[in-house]
Amino acid sequence: MKTLIIVSHPEIDNSQTQQFLKKGAEESKAVWHHVESLDSIDISKEQDLLRQADRIIFQFPLYWYAAPYGLKKWEDKVLTRNFIYGDGSFPLENKQFGIVVTTGMPLKDFKKGATENITLDEAMAPYRAIANLGKMKIMPLFAVPQFWYMSEDEQMQMLIDYQRYLTQQLPDSLVNCQQWFEQRLHDFVDNLENGDKVMGNLILDTFVQNMEDLDQVSDTLKMIKEGEDE
Amino acid sequence: MKTLIIVSHPEIDNSQTQQFLKKGAEESKAVWHHVESLDSIDISKEQDLLRQADRIIFQFPLYWYAAPYGLKKWEDKVLTRNFIYGDGSFPLENKQFGIVVTTGMPLKDFKKGATENITLDEAMAPYRAIANLGKMKIMPLFAVPQFWYMSEDEQMQMLIDYQRYLTQQLPDSLVNCQQWFEQRLHDFVDNLENGDKVMGNLILDTFVQNMEDLDQVSDTLKMIKEGEDE
Repeated sequence: MKTLIIVSHPEIDNSQTQQFLKKGAEESKAVWHHVESLDSIDISKEQDLLRQADRIIFQFPLYWYAAPYGLKKWEDKVLTRNFIYGDGSFPLENKQFGIVVTTGMPLKDFKKGATENITLDEAMAPYRAIANLGKMKIMPLFAVPQFWYMSEDEQMQMLIDYQRYLTQQLPDSLVNCQQWFEQRLHDFVDNLENGDKVMGNLILDTFVQNMEDLDQVSDTLKMIKEGEDE
Repeated sequence: MKTLIIVSHPEIDNSQTQQFLKKGAEESKAVWHHVESLDSIDISKEQDLLRQADRIIFQFPLYWYAAPYGLKKWEDKVLTRNFIYGDGSFPLENKQFGIVVTTGMPLKDFKKGATENITLDEAMAPYRAIANLGKMKIMPLFAVPQFWYMSEDEQMQMLIDYQRYLTQQLPDSLVNCQQWFEQRLHDFVDNLENGDKVMGNLILDTFVQNMEDLDQVSDTLKMIKEGEDE
């Protein structure tokens, strides 16, 4: 899974939220591509980056219900009509498209009748319309509201959810989530040595065994339910 | 009625649509403010412009379901939080907010299930959310689809509708439309001389008389209808 994150932030070095997410992205081996850091926009180079990715994420703070202008500038230049849908070819077809949006406002404000009077999904509609035109697979939005008010534990939990958003198989089901954690545990144990590695492998075996048990219980429950339906 | 048009187009001199609309705007004595022509954005000067206007129009070609990045840049800089809704004051409160959007695609494509799979109203939601936060009065969208395919007559009809959009009293009712045309006729006759002016005044009198007759007929119809309801 090659994940490309198109990040837009006019002062990214001063954004603790983006710096925090950046560490998570690097750990996940996703490509971190900050558009405001580009000296100039090389259209074919940018398009190649997009072509090479399996999952493309737009990531930005919400400024007036959209990305900062740097992302729109990038869009207006890089996303030529031919690249999205011209000539009956669709270079981005079947790639996955996600949005990570940070905001200083609480999520409860983004409702009809609430302070912002618009949902985040509504505000993001223009980006998804592009993805739709390019026949991409649209992922649910990943919102990071009020990072500053999160406890350290909440920040860590959010970071793991973010990393799952970057690389976990779709859809975000229990099975896919378990497999993602198993892979992470594998990677972790591989880097251990001697006694730690033995212990790590025992933990991994237990984790996998638990997953298999859970699968069996799920199957049994399913059979019982089907029996009831008859 | 002071109307301010915030126009965004990266190559406005090459846009025949914008040049056509510009003539209509000048005739209507609206302020034509092209953001990409600004050497730099003087925030307080821009905010003063907005403060002085009764009606504020964002006008642009649709690029990826939004304005060109020049308008977003202007928004990100000029629309500070305090200017829109900070400190419990609302400098733009009760001003009218409209959007004029030009597009090369036919309107029928902007529907759920159609090619674009998004309505223009949905694409414009972020701009209206700003206006909503600033307690402005939101006008219906003015769309100019496929200017190039319009006949000369259709272009002229569109131009008049555009001028009404810039200066006519809200709502866009028959009475307000009549008054707008009466005012235009007045202005026109005022500029005539001698015999032409006499003829012009006769036409104006007839027009006003027709309007009054129409009002009387409307009143009569209303009375009959009220009688039926009893």
